[in-house]
Amino acid sequence: MTRKISFGIMLQGAGGHMNAWRHPKSPVDASVNLDFFRTAALKAEAAGIAFAFVADGLYINEKSIPHFLNRFEPLTILAALATVTSRIGLAGTVSTSYSDPFTIARQFASLDLISGGRCGWNAVTTPLEGTAKNYSRNHPEHALRYEIADEYLEVVKGLWDSWDDDAFTRDRESGQFFDREKLHTLGHKGRFFQVEGPLNIQRSPQGQPVIFQAGSSDAGIGLAGKHADAVFTNGVSLEGNQTFSRRVKQSAVAQGRSADDVKIFPGVGPIVGRTQAEAEEKYQVIRNLISIDEALAYLGRFFDQHDFSAYDLDAPFPDLGDIGRNSFRSTTDRIKQVAKEQGQTLREAALAAATPREGFVGTPDAVASKLIEWFENGAADGFILGFPVIAEGLDDFTRLVLPILEERGYFDPQLKAGTLRENLGLPYRQSVYAGVDGETEKARA
Amino acid sequence: MTRKISFGIMLQGAGGHMNAWRHPKSPVDASVNLDFFRTAALKAEAAGIAFAFVADGLYINEKSIPHFLNRFEPLTILAALATVTSRIGLAGTVSTSYSDPFTIARQFASLDLISGGRCGWNAVTTPLEGTAKNYSRNHPEHALRYEIADEYLEVVKGLWDSWDDDAFTRDRESGQFFDREKLHTLGHKGRFFQVEGPLNIQRSPQGQPVIFQAGSSDAGIGLAGKHADAVFTNGVSLEGNQTFSRRVKQSAVAQGRSADDVKIFPGVGPIVGRTQAEAEEKYQVIRNLISIDEALAYLGRFFDQHDFSAYDLDAPFPDLGDIGRNSFRSTTDRIKQVAKEQGQTLREAALAAATPREGFVGTPDAVASKLIEWFENGAADGFILGFPVIAEGLDDFTRLVLPILEERGYFDPQLKAGTLRENLGLPYRQSVYAGVDGETEKARA
Repeated sequence: MTRKISFGIMLQGAGGHMNAWRHPKSPVDASVNLDFFRTAALKAEAAGIAFAFVADGLYINEKSIPHFLNRFEPLTILAALATVTSRIGLAGTVSTSYSDPFTIARQFASLDLISGGRCGWNAVTTPLEGTAKNYSRNHPEHALRYEIADEYLEVVKGLWDSWDDDAFTRDRESGQFFDREKLHTLGHKGRFFQVEGPLNIQRSPQGQPVIFQAGSSDAGIGLAGKHADAVFTNGVSLEGNQTFSRRVKQSAVAQGRSADDVKIFPGVGPIVGRTQAEAEEKYQVIRNLISIDEALAYLGRFFDQHDFSAYDLDAPFPDLGDIGRNSFRSTTDRIKQVAKEQGQTLREAALAAATPREGFVGTPDAVASKLIEWFENGAADGFILGFPVIAEGLDDFTRLVLPILEERGYFDPQLKAGTLRENLGLPYRQSVYAGVDGETEKARA
Repeated sequence: MTRKISFGIMLQGAGGHMNAWRHPKSPVDASVNLDFFRTAALKAEAAGIAFAFVADGLYINEKSIPHFLNRFEPLTILAALATVTSRIGLAGTVSTSYSDPFTIARQFASLDLISGGRCGWNAVTTPLEGTAKNYSRNHPEHALRYEIADEYLEVVKGLWDSWDDDAFTRDRESGQFFDREKLHTLGHKGRFFQVEGPLNIQRSPQGQPVIFQAGSSDAGIGLAGKHADAVFTNGVSLEGNQTFSRRVKQSAVAQGRSADDVKIFPGVGPIVGRTQAEAEEKYQVIRNLISIDEALAYLGRFFDQHDFSAYDLDAPFPDLGDIGRNSFRSTTDRIKQVAKEQGQTLREAALAAATPREGFVGTPDAVASKLIEWFENGAADGFILGFPVIAEGLDDFTRLVLPILEERGYFDPQLKAGTLRENLGLPYRQSVYAGVDGETEKARA
């Protein structure tokens, strides 16, 4: 068996739990603590985790959860980590609804060059309506956001091919800095964007940054199939993730790509103890970082800031109609579905949303077996590790779970000294202008 | 005497000369060479140079000069340098005409936090009309660009005060993460921008990033007087820079600020030899990196990409009418003026523009004396060093000129371990909500 499980680690404040900062092992200022980020990235790199991932958001109010209120901006913290790490990939979120493709193409290309080809971009369409209030515009609705994203990604990928790999000749004697035949001006004129190009930066050792995508709606799956190298999704259940993985890969195939061209990364938040009892104890410590009021507010965030405080906590989860349909659609659909299937009260649904378990609370062997089960059964190519409390979860996972995966032949603890694409099993990204033999294939624009 | 000369170093490809990459001491790929940037920043830091500065541009075509064609994006390279340096300031250009204030406020605030308060933003309005072709919009004309910039800066500075210095209480026991009284929602509704806020990041050790500004037109001076902590300008002549400095400081005073609140940094490109003959020899090596055709193309860049190749090279500098008035106005005005005063031919004007001397080609003593003369006579508070060839100029300057300035009491080679503001002699930037005794002064928005 040669196929291995890839891992990424989510660096989001002190961890994925909304009150991770209160955990005794966390620095209270983790979300803006450079040393915390550096240490976590270096530990992950040493353990063979393929990439660190920084999520993002562009709107807060006083009800937002702590690590959203005060956080590093992804591109700057990733670039800062690029020079203190050497093998780990560095990926982050930037919205296609609230940025300019020329700027974002440049910033990721620059980060990719700085990091030696270790960078990835999670292209999101931004679900939070409030974002528009910070950007002097109106929030596009769901379908329109995905149409914009599609064209945006076309533009960015086009700009990334502005220069052939060997365009910069840099011949001191003749004074020729580049070969004009190897410069491609995009000349994009579309519905949403008009971008002339060329981009003012060369390609990187991996050709183009890895494109991540995270939307799980039909539109999201369509976008992923067309553009994404890797897709994040909620780690819900073996069956749910099998279905999701199949749909994304089918979408890729329908676009003329191979099913292997897009890797599926369910998000999981393992809480590992040497015994099941120890794992449960760790879960309880984390569960107790939160009050029911905070859990309700956290839940409300997914449902267009809906105020759940007026409902009966111990009555069945309320019927919310279309609330949440235009923001975190896949998450809200799932919360509603689970509440219905399991007959959850509002209290139970809120606590479950704030401190999810998803079956990854257990012994090293149980957690490893479950990861292998998902991997072997087409539910995952890798996992994005959203430890509820990084300061505890990362050490536990690398010391207790990864060695088991390695022993069973599912994990290689040594990252390649190369690119993120290599570490994810993705090929070098050829330019659209490069033929199989490296000849120019398309006429110059 | 306690007042010292501050220095910044321009990191732009292999140096300020358009063909610096061809110099025998330069790496040919300097503009995208991380080690070159890192080494230069560390050398500058060790020598007591207060900040490294990365300029920018958002539009190229095949006629652009080499280090514009392929360059790091400023925010990413500055963040990358933040974790490998410890005392040097890190400043870069971002355009107010082609970006969003919420994003830029965040990115600089994040860089400022990552660097421990060492960051600066050079807010430019972008002269190059072609930029619009990469940003799906029309290029605003000169006056409008400055009106946009003024409101943009108001928004960014407002967002930077979203949280009081002590807003984040982070009390593990009570669960209080922040004090709601110390959160300020901007609620900006202006002519160009509507930005609700608050910003999702705290203030830095220097309060706010240092704001640099570089426009030298009347509108630029007005903007600088209102908003800038430091102003870049061309190092033209003692008299020219005295006048400029006086005008900027008067503009600041007219805005209710102190003349000391805004520091003037003429750009100079010293070429230093142990003897005048050695300096001239170095100048000639640099001068010979360029052909007359390249010099004409370089000149054309300032004049709206004007094609000078059809003119008689040895006739007097042509009358260009209004060409160049809407882009690099102060530079084109100066080129025209010098050509007229000195009776330059087109050939002479083009070569002078490509390899300027401005009197800073000489012995260590002559260069040091000239810097002191400008400093003592109100033409400069510091200098931004735009070495024509960094790999040669930085070493020469730090080894030969800085020790003389130190000996004469004009330079402190030891940077403070603190913020860029401290190293530039600028005070901590108080929040608008902070009274002299730290009490909240304004009502919450």
